[in-house]
Amino acid sequence: MSDVPSRRALMTGAAAATFLAPGLVPGLAAAAAKSSVRDVDTVAIRKAAEAGYDASVKRIQDWIALPSIAAENRDMDKGADYMAALARDAGFTGVEKVPTDGAPGVFGVLDVGAKRWLAIYFMYDVKQYDPAEWSSPPLEARIVDKPGFGKVIVGRGAVNQKGPQASFLAALHAIRAAGKKPPVNLVLVCEGEEEIGSPHFRQVVTKPNVLAALQKCEGVIIPAGWQSPGNGGVSVNLGAKGIVELELVSSGAKWGRGPKTDIHSSEKARVDSPAWRLVQALTTLVTPDGNTPAIEGWFEKVRPLTAREKELIGLAAQRINEAEAKRILGVERWIDDLPWEKALERLASQPTVNIEGLVSGYTGPGGKTVLPGRAVAKIDLRLVPNMTKDDAVAKLRAHLDKRGFPDIEVNVSGGYDPTETDENSRLIRAQLKVYERAGVPATLYPRSAGSWPGTVFTSPPVSLAAGQFGLGHGSGAHAPNEYYVIESSNPKVQGLVGGTMSYVDLMYEVAEAK
Amino acid sequence: MSDVPSRRALMTGAAAATFLAPGLVPGLAAAAAKSSVRDVDTVAIRKAAEAGYDASVKRIQDWIALPSIAAENRDMDKGADYMAALARDAGFTGVEKVPTDGAPGVFGVLDVGAKRWLAIYFMYDVKQYDPAEWSSPPLEARIVDKPGFGKVIVGRGAVNQKGPQASFLAALHAIRAAGKKPPVNLVLVCEGEEEIGSPHFRQVVTKPNVLAALQKCEGVIIPAGWQSPGNGGVSVNLGAKGIVELELVSSGAKWGRGPKTDIHSSEKARVDSPAWRLVQALTTLVTPDGNTPAIEGWFEKVRPLTAREKELIGLAAQRINEAEAKRILGVERWIDDLPWEKALERLASQPTVNIEGLVSGYTGPGGKTVLPGRAVAKIDLRLVPNMTKDDAVAKLRAHLDKRGFPDIEVNVSGGYDPTETDENSRLIRAQLKVYERAGVPATLYPRSAGSWPGTVFTSPPVSLAAGQFGLGHGSGAHAPNEYYVIESSNPKVQGLVGGTMSYVDLMYEVAEAK
Repeated sequence: MSDVPSRRALMTGAAAATFLAPGLVPGLAAAAAKSSVRDVDTVAIRKAAEAGYDASVKRIQDWIALPSIAAENRDMDKGADYMAALARDAGFTGVEKVPTDGAPGVFGVLDVGAKRWLAIYFMYDVKQYDPAEWSSPPLEARIVDKPGFGKVIVGRGAVNQKGPQASFLAALHAIRAAGKKPPVNLVLVCEGEEEIGSPHFRQVVTKPNVLAALQKCEGVIIPAGWQSPGNGGVSVNLGAKGIVELELVSSGAKWGRGPKTDIHSSEKARVDSPAWRLVQALTTLVTPDGNTPAIEGWFEKVRPLTAREKELIGLAAQRINEAEAKRILGVERWIDDLPWEKALERLASQPTVNIEGLVSGYTGPGGKTVLPGRAVAKIDLRLVPNMTKDDAVAKLRAHLDKRGFPDIEVNVSGGYDPTETDENSRLIRAQLKVYERAGVPATLYPRSAGSWPGTVFTSPPVSLAAGQFGLGHGSGAHAPNEYYVIESSNPKVQGLVGGTMSYVDLMYEVAEAK
Repeated sequence: MSDVPSRRALMTGAAAATFLAPGLVPGLAAAAAKSSVRDVDTVAIRKAAEAGYDASVKRIQDWIALPSIAAENRDMDKGADYMAALARDAGFTGVEKVPTDGAPGVFGVLDVGAKRWLAIYFMYDVKQYDPAEWSSPPLEARIVDKPGFGKVIVGRGAVNQKGPQASFLAALHAIRAAGKKPPVNLVLVCEGEEEIGSPHFRQVVTKPNVLAALQKCEGVIIPAGWQSPGNGGVSVNLGAKGIVELELVSSGAKWGRGPKTDIHSSEKARVDSPAWRLVQALTTLVTPDGNTPAIEGWFEKVRPLTAREKELIGLAAQRINEAEAKRILGVERWIDDLPWEKALERLASQPTVNIEGLVSGYTGPGGKTVLPGRAVAKIDLRLVPNMTKDDAVAKLRAHLDKRGFPDIEVNVSGGYDPTETDENSRLIRAQLKVYERAGVPATLYPRSAGSWPGTVFTSPPVSLAAGQFGLGHGSGAHAPNEYYVIESSNPKVQGLVGGTMSYVDLMYEVAEAK
């Protein structure tokens, strides 16, 4: 009968102090009986997490105040030092900055002599931002009441990923404050270039001591705060698309036609235009509706969805609210007016050629009569298994050459291959069990359409299971007013302490999983 | 024999003090005999212009220090007040700011009871600028030594058009300082929106008192400083192309597809892209080489070059140095590798669709994984006779609608029809005579490929001859490091005083022309 108050409490938000205590979760009484030490420990840890709430909030705010932005080469070294200090503070030892050809990585170990090891991936960089677009200064990390959500921190990096990462660190602080030890040993690997496509992260994980530590692990998680505000649901992604970020550059200098700099636009009548040339080259890259890559050979290596992947998407389509998804995105229709399940299949299965930005000539208010000497399209390519970054870039180059655009530069700034993790790995099974214990609907999903450099973990030589994990909620990654819920007014969604406890529970689950 | 020293002096630069005195110009002895009063007057005026040199330089510098930029709505009212003060200072009376639906115009009259009237067009606005691209601050109007040119003023508006306009004002100051009166009455009409396509200038010239004054005039000139640094030659243009400036805007909001704001680029797999839609729409506007408009019906009203126009271009091709033109533009080849004369024909005869700028999504350094909700192409259309702005805009709209892009917005910011002036008008004949007297090779050219709102003068109800005029040199209009020569080290090119005297001479020539 113990499930009734617990269940009611979950619905009213009053269960925050207990929801992760397995004994109180219906249907897990047997598991609870076997886990009495864990039960006692997690109650103590939770108390410590609650006592540490103010410090945890401040840890997020202070971190947000130091934005490392790889695209602007802003405070990368400072950000790595800060990351290293956070790691040491949370108990990691042997913490070192790992030099790369770009921004440094950070590595550390927390070896408590446990039987199993778990790896954690952090990024210390954040996306660019324009303060003019924000309701409060993006580095101020102001705490505001967000109707329907509760107390949130508004700031660049709040959910992507400083909030969830700091929630993970809070778990280690709480475990120590409760006089306990983590039930698994931990390996922390961090990078500072996630937002530019992780061009040098492989250098971090293949450093011999880092690689040796990773190879002991059951898998690697990236802390996330993506509970649905509707039903509190989460996705467990069995992989992610790969990505290539690049600039296509058309210029008079390379072309040997058109001007080398911006000239007066009246000259268009006798001078070729690099901007028009870029437009023409772009047109060849996709179908006329802009939705399907038309680069020669693009689909050669694309593996269609398996029956199991389609089945998982079908199940996901039942769980995820289409209207809510459209509302959040500000989108009225999916491509080709696809029905919901087909839109989800397309999202998971299709490679894309996306225009991130266009820049040429005069870009300010009003007009200016120039014929630009240069035009740039910022492009991202999303890749699905079994495409690879190198093959995609080679195909794009060959396509442009063949279509008569050998002068159009393809300047790749970063990217990585798709990543895939086995549904039956110990890490994925542990994640699903934690969600189940917490009464959180977890949707097993074949592949995230977003990208993260999981391939460096899932492919040789590291070859680990890998995936996002965590309770909690935030949104606005890459957009203004990014936020992370620290005190949830929605009983289905966890705040900072609940998120923290989800990591505690995962560590126990990985330690105990068969 | 008097021509020999004069000729030698012209070649060495020592003739600056005398080159406009007709008695010293070879072959004009007869004309000189009839113009002795004018000869005496112009010598005195020239002395006054030289005495006023420092004040004239300062007048340009002070004017440059106040940039009125219509595209940014920057200091328009202040600029109009300043323009009015400059006009009063030069002797114009009844000077008034003429309100329009945009920036105010300025109007004034200098009625000395002469037989004939001449109108002058000024613009008090300048193009936008980015100080980071300049070698010296663009508002500082620094005087620098420019090798091969002499002393120049570097600043925004130096040649387009504050320098040449101030040189004209200097002529009036010099005439007064010499105790003389202008040989013609003058009407001054000014606007502050030339650089955005003169959207409201017709409101200025059709104000009843302005129109009445203009209708008394022989024609209207716009002061210019476009002597070729090679041979000192100038062009006399019998017209100019028209222009339309506009933005093509593709947005999720208008389209009903794609996002309304920038969203995460992973969504491309299920969400349409307004940026790709813009690219597709743009592609339909020109031939695949980007050089010929492909908008339906675009050439319906295009009048081909007449035999006389082709003849004039053929003569021009002999006079203008192709290599120099290419070098100045930073261009290696003309469209289709055309030979020089054909390139000039194309420049004069062909309408264009030019991309001034492209703006969408993320435009900063590096990349940012967004799917933009909006994409903008800044476009200018150059029009040739007998195209009209209104017809061109209607055809563009109809073309986009017919091609399936009714949602692409066409936001016109300004523009005007082409302009044409009769080769046999008194104004053009007077201009050619001044150049001939000065020994300056003048190339009669059917049409400038650049645009100016001459149509408001040449078409009803004003119906005047109109054209650029002036000696002197500057360059870099619309570009960084714009300059205007104030003290020429090139004997074939006039500095500030020579430019000033060219306006004095034109006034006399208009007064005396048959």
